Amino acid sequence: MNQTPQQSNQGPVDVVIMAAGKGTRMKSKLPKVLHRLAGRALLAHVTDTAARIGARHVVVVTGHGAEQVEAAIKATAVNAAALGFARQEPQLGTGHAVQQATPQLPDDGTVVILSGDVPLIGEDTLRTLIAASGGERLALLTIELDDPTGYGRIIRISAGGEVTAIVEHKDATEAQRTVREINSGVMAAPARLLKGWLARLDNKNAQGEYYLTDIVKFAADDRVPVVAHVTTDALQVAGINSPAQLAALERAWQLRQANALMEQGVRLADPARFDLRGTLSCGTDVDIDVNCVFEGTVSLGEGVRIGANCVIANVRIEAGAVIHPFTHIDGEKAGVTVGAGALVGPFARLRPGAQLGAEVHIGNFVEVKNSTLAAGAKANHLAYLGDATVGERVNYGAGSITANYDGANKHRTVIEADVHVGSNSVLVAPITIGAGGTIGGGSTVNKSTEPGALTVARGKQVSFPNWKRPQKLPKG
Amino acid sequence: MNQTPQQSNQGPVDVVIMAAGKGTRMKSKLPKVLHRLAGRALLAHVTDTAARIGARHVVVVTGHGAEQVEAAIKATAVNAAALGFARQEPQLGTGHAVQQATPQLPDDGTVVILSGDVPLIGEDTLRTLIAASGGERLALLTIELDDPTGYGRIIRISAGGEVTAIVEHKDATEAQRTVREINSGVMAAPARLLKGWLARLDNKNAQGEYYLTDIVKFAADDRVPVVAHVTTDALQVAGINSPAQLAALERAWQLRQANALMEQGVRLADPARFDLRGTLSCGTDVDIDVNCVFEGTVSLGEGVRIGANCVIANVRIEAGAVIHPFTHIDGEKAGVTVGAGALVGPFARLRPGAQLGAEVHIGNFVEVKNSTLAAGAKANHLAYLGDATVGERVNYGAGSITANYDGANKHRTVIEADVHVGSNSVLVAPITIGAGGTIGGGSTVNKSTEPGALTVARGKQVSFPNWKRPQKLPKG
Amino acid sequence: MNQTPQQSNQGPVDVVIMAAGKGTRMKSKLPKVLHRLAGRALLAHVTDTAARIGARHVVVVTGHGAEQVEAAIKATAVNAAALGFARQEPQLGTGHAVQQATPQLPDDGTVVILSGDVPLIGEDTLRTLIAASGGERLALLTIELDDPTGYGRIIRISAGGEVTAIVEHKDATEAQRTVREINSGVMAAPARLLKGWLARLDNKNAQGEYYLTDIVKFAADDRVPVVAHVTTDALQVAGINSPAQLAALERAWQLRQANALMEQGVRLADPARFDLRGTLSCGTDVDIDVNCVFEGTVSLGEGVRIGANCVIANVRIEAGAVIHPFTHIDGEKAGVTVGAGALVGPFARLRPGAQLGAEVHIGNFVEVKNSTLAAGAKANHLAYLGDATVGERVNYGAGSITANYDGANKHRTVIEADVHVGSNSVLVAPITIGAGGTIGGGSTVNKSTEPGALTVARGKQVSFPNWKRPQKLPKG
Repeated sequence: MNQTPQQSNQGPVDVVIMAAGKGTRMKSKLPKVLHRLAGRALLAHVTDTAARIGARHVVVVTGHGAEQVEAAIKATAVNAAALGFARQEPQLGTGHAVQQATPQLPDDGTVVILSGDVPLIGEDTLRTLIAASGGERLALLTIELDDPTGYGRIIRISAGGEVTAIVEHKDATEAQRTVREINSGVMAAPARLLKGWLARLDNKNAQGEYYLTDIVKFAADDRVPVVAHVTTDALQVAGINSPAQLAALERAWQLRQANALMEQGVRLADPARFDLRGTLSCGTDVDIDVNCVFEGTVSLGEGVRIGANCVIANVRIEAGAVIHPFTHIDGEKAGVTVGAGALVGPFARLRPGAQLGAEVHIGNFVEVKNSTLAAGAKANHLAYLGDATVGERVNYGAGSITANYDGANKHRTVIEADVHVGSNSVLVAPITIGAGGTIGGGSTVNKSTEPGALTVARGKQVSFPNWKRPQKLPKG
Repeated sequence: MNQTPQQSNQGPVDVVIMAAGKGTRMKSKLPKVLHRLAGRALLAHVTDTAARIGARHVVVVTGHGAEQVEAAIKATAVNAAALGFARQEPQLGTGHAVQQATPQLPDDGTVVILSGDVPLIGEDTLRTLIAASGGERLALLTIELDDPTGYGRIIRISAGGEVTAIVEHKDATEAQRTVREINSGVMAAPARLLKGWLARLDNKNAQGEYYLTDIVKFAADDRVPVVAHVTTDALQVAGINSPAQLAALERAWQLRQANALMEQGVRLADPARFDLRGTLSCGTDVDIDVNCVFEGTVSLGEGVRIGANCVIANVRIEAGAVIHPFTHIDGEKAGVTVGAGALVGPFARLRPGAQLGAEVHIGNFVEVKNSTLAAGAKANHLAYLGDATVGERVNYGAGSITANYDGANKHRTVIEADVHVGSNSVLVAPITIGAGGTIGGGSTVNKSTEPGALTVARGKQVSFPNWKRPQKLPKG
Repeated sequence: MNQTPQQSNQGPVDVVIMAAGKGTRMKSKLPKVLHRLAGRALLAHVTDTAARIGARHVVVVTGHGAEQVEAAIKATAVNAAALGFARQEPQLGTGHAVQQATPQLPDDGTVVILSGDVPLIGEDTLRTLIAASGGERLALLTIELDDPTGYGRIIRISAGGEVTAIVEHKDATEAQRTVREINSGVMAAPARLLKGWLARLDNKNAQGEYYLTDIVKFAADDRVPVVAHVTTDALQVAGINSPAQLAALERAWQLRQANALMEQGVRLADPARFDLRGTLSCGTDVDIDVNCVFEGTVSLGEGVRIGANCVIANVRIEAGAVIHPFTHIDGEKAGVTVGAGALVGPFARLRPGAQLGAEVHIGNFVEVKNSTLAAGAKANHLAYLGDATVGERVNYGAGSITANYDGANKHRTVIEADVHVGSNSVLVAPITIGAGGTIGGGSTVNKSTEPGALTVARGKQVSFPNWKRPQKLPKG
């Protein structure tokens, strides 16, 4: 029976996450729980969810690669203060894993037990499960599978009634094997009860392991009700054991994210060719063409259009801007801003600290890094702007380069408003090109120029008539 | 029963398209019928089809966003002369919508009623439906659905017999709900009959709306036969109400287009990663690699190969040309031509007015705009050619730029046959480089040069021995 | 019954491949067997498999486009010495095709008959089939289809027993049509027996053709056992008759390749957007993002990461290197090497002979061809390195170009260790920039420079105050 959330006296919520496994089938040197789904470690998805349900303590039980796991999770946790670790060495089963966490679990709480390799468990599901536990019951999360072969079956006193046992597939009778409801491994229980049950576990079984599922039996012995919340969402309880499973869950999750965005009104040319590894917030009338990848924190203003085959990370793109195909944006920590009505790409790259004002144009084969471009500035072709401050309406010619690096230090280039920089120019920083000035094409300029001046730095044009070109040499 | 087309006395065909709805679930400021499928507004697909069946009048009934809808459709219609509009304000149901169009419908025609959000209705289907109406019957387009829940059921006098009613799902008896044949909303009827039925509609129902489907009842009352043409093609009657439905229909349609091209002999590396938004005509032995997007009007000659991840629009590519991966071509209105045997890309961009002759090579990070390149010309690396006329066999060096814009006006660069332009040159237009001439690398040339001449414009090379480079400054 | 491999006395294996068909439905000028699956001709897949099972003679029976087929296959065969050809002109059926090959088939062998348009037949399947033939039986490869309509049915003496006939669909009784086991066309038989049966074929049938399947009848007449090996792998017996079938098999095969790589531990962001046309060997912890294409021979070292939308061919990428999105690498015959820990892309292109040492950085809009870069060298922005030897820690500035081509011959550029090449420089080859030297930005250098020297070649910077820019001309 699905438990209706009841009046709860469950106290604070503490979470235990099992993350000690090696993940042999991943065939990787990386501990399994650090493999990434949607750009974030499996385990981090779980700690994120634990934070979202307001967990007081989140105890991660580590084992294989414990130091690596602990360091990685601490570095990216949203709830670092709540985070604790317990080592499970050697690894003697799921019950043994939770036993390692008990010293960190106060008696007054409800303990939720999760797996670091089951990344998509949902916040609402956990809230329902906690309510089902209600401070006095053992609550299991279960699911009905078309093919339950291999899973532990949920045995109930009657259809929809209380749970009396979890029977492993290999131990199940023929009748029990017809049960399609299986144990997901996720559960919630009052800490004081859970601790007592954990203390009674033994390893007298074929594998010599301490099984967490044995606590169902103890609960029954203690006349503590065991209830089950049946989820219908297989993604939430899907575990990762192999690269193929990881890829399958990645695709299912990406499709779900795509559907959620479409539900908000975002238009995706192909939901099956959309990847979001982070958060994407969109205004109305956003269009995203095929095969785009979004990473980190991205916001797209009203009417923004993203062309085919873009990779877009850590950027705020304001209303009406158009990102043409084959554009690569990654603001990393510094961020990137693309102003309202700006046009970017195709084949443009915006790097950390690129701040484009309204109506700025960044065209093909142009790279912008750590530079501010005021409204209406343009760099349309084959150019590099690094460590530059570019004024309004500047036209930065094709092939022009800010020489911001002298081989040791980086310097700033200031191009004031309305400057016209000719093609293939080099602006050697530190330098200021005064407002309204013009730089003749092909000039290398290393001294600042006055406003309104035309500046050239070029060789005199000389022709040699009837010049005989080099001839093709004989081979060899 | 599917009607066999009968000897027709249906007169001219007039079309009414319902396009007044808001499309709330699109969550968009754009009127629903202006959302795009395969790059064209939903409504424009329908008006295109109306044009293809030779409609005399096409009356679009607008409401939400009427001005925007009317302007957009007029601007892109292929049958602008036939196009008329009727406003439906307020919107009092489908029957009311058609009522607004009746003043524009002569009595001698057959009226076909379509929806602006059902974009893929087929020309042949409509011809069959019109023949089924045959100048004397009401003909409905129907389809059998596996799950007809929510749709109006087609009630027939007997299996395959005449239609006696359309019963809305909510009004249907249990027996009627087992009927899987449903009303698509598309119908054809003689104008003189239709007008009479429309005049008899009332809004005495729960919603207070005038329902078009009520005319079936009037036809029965008038002993006018009601026939149904059952389509088996769900795409043709699929309506769009949400971004998810739009994306689903987009993918289904793209797959159908891909299959049609393969049927013609075009080889697609992945039909599920192919997008055509416009028309694509292909000679024999065309190969298209994964993840390409085609827009506007594109023709590919015999043996053309398109590499992975290209975006190709408004271009004629002649026989044997090879477009390497990551190439972006968009001729917009001016068009682009790629000559026979030309090689373009990877990472090339051809813009409007790029006219490449036979065996021209355009290589990586090269942009060509409004320029003609004669046979055998090459620009292989990091270059810009804008507003240029380039002769046969010219070699345009890496990093070279035509400085076509003086900050106010654009000027033409003429590079005559057999010229060799050295690397990182700037050609300041207006300028002519005489045939067979050579421009030394790094030269900025702003005066025309004689045929056969070597022209250089560079500073003298000076070395300063034992130069001490700037040192890394301490931070802070 | 699936034959258990038996003690074999089958002698050497000879293979006949039928490759004479036109493939009308391909709608192509290319003979059908030369169409490509996973980048390799259909027929070449089959000759490759023949080589892998150690075939002594591989006789390809050609007809349509025979010369083209023979030339193409000879050019790419891995077992050229074993390869022979027989012409079938005119084409009088499958039996007639094999008859053309018999003069090249010694009596002591087992003959395996394959089709050039069934490209994915597996090595293990053939070994099992050969063992089933065992030097004394006719062994057929069969498969059970859900819908066997149109195929020749396998008639057995009893369920799982010996085969008594292959009955064509059109000749089959109702009872026979319920048989779901069909003939794949692949078979193995002792040469001495096969030759006798082939000699007895006639063309007294509706089509006037010599049918290979008639030999089953002769075997039965001769009391030679006919056995069948039932494969469950539909891909192995899938034939190609149209571009749609080719695309479907391509996708199925690509997915299978993707799964095999994941099984080895390779992480693919989307197995449905992965293409491998050649061989890909991977160390542990390789990550491949969406929509990448691999061609030719590629090896990826431990921990290599390949970003989204890359095209990667004929390259060895060493441990820890990171290839950013939109990178195009093709070593063609010369190969490319990317050293350990190198960073390449986005928007980089590595061409034949690019040899990048450890920790080399190649950034956006940079092309490298036939050049060696020693450890730690960097070319981060908009640059061309062709025919260059670049020393350790060189910094090759944005926009810099090696002018390696004088219009007739290519010359070498040597940039010794620790050189700093300023932005937009041109290095005119042949030239050597001495170790630790500096080239000032915007310089065109055509004479070699001494170690440690600063070299500049630029015009003097001159400014003209209050310069009046050109004004926008009136149109027309």
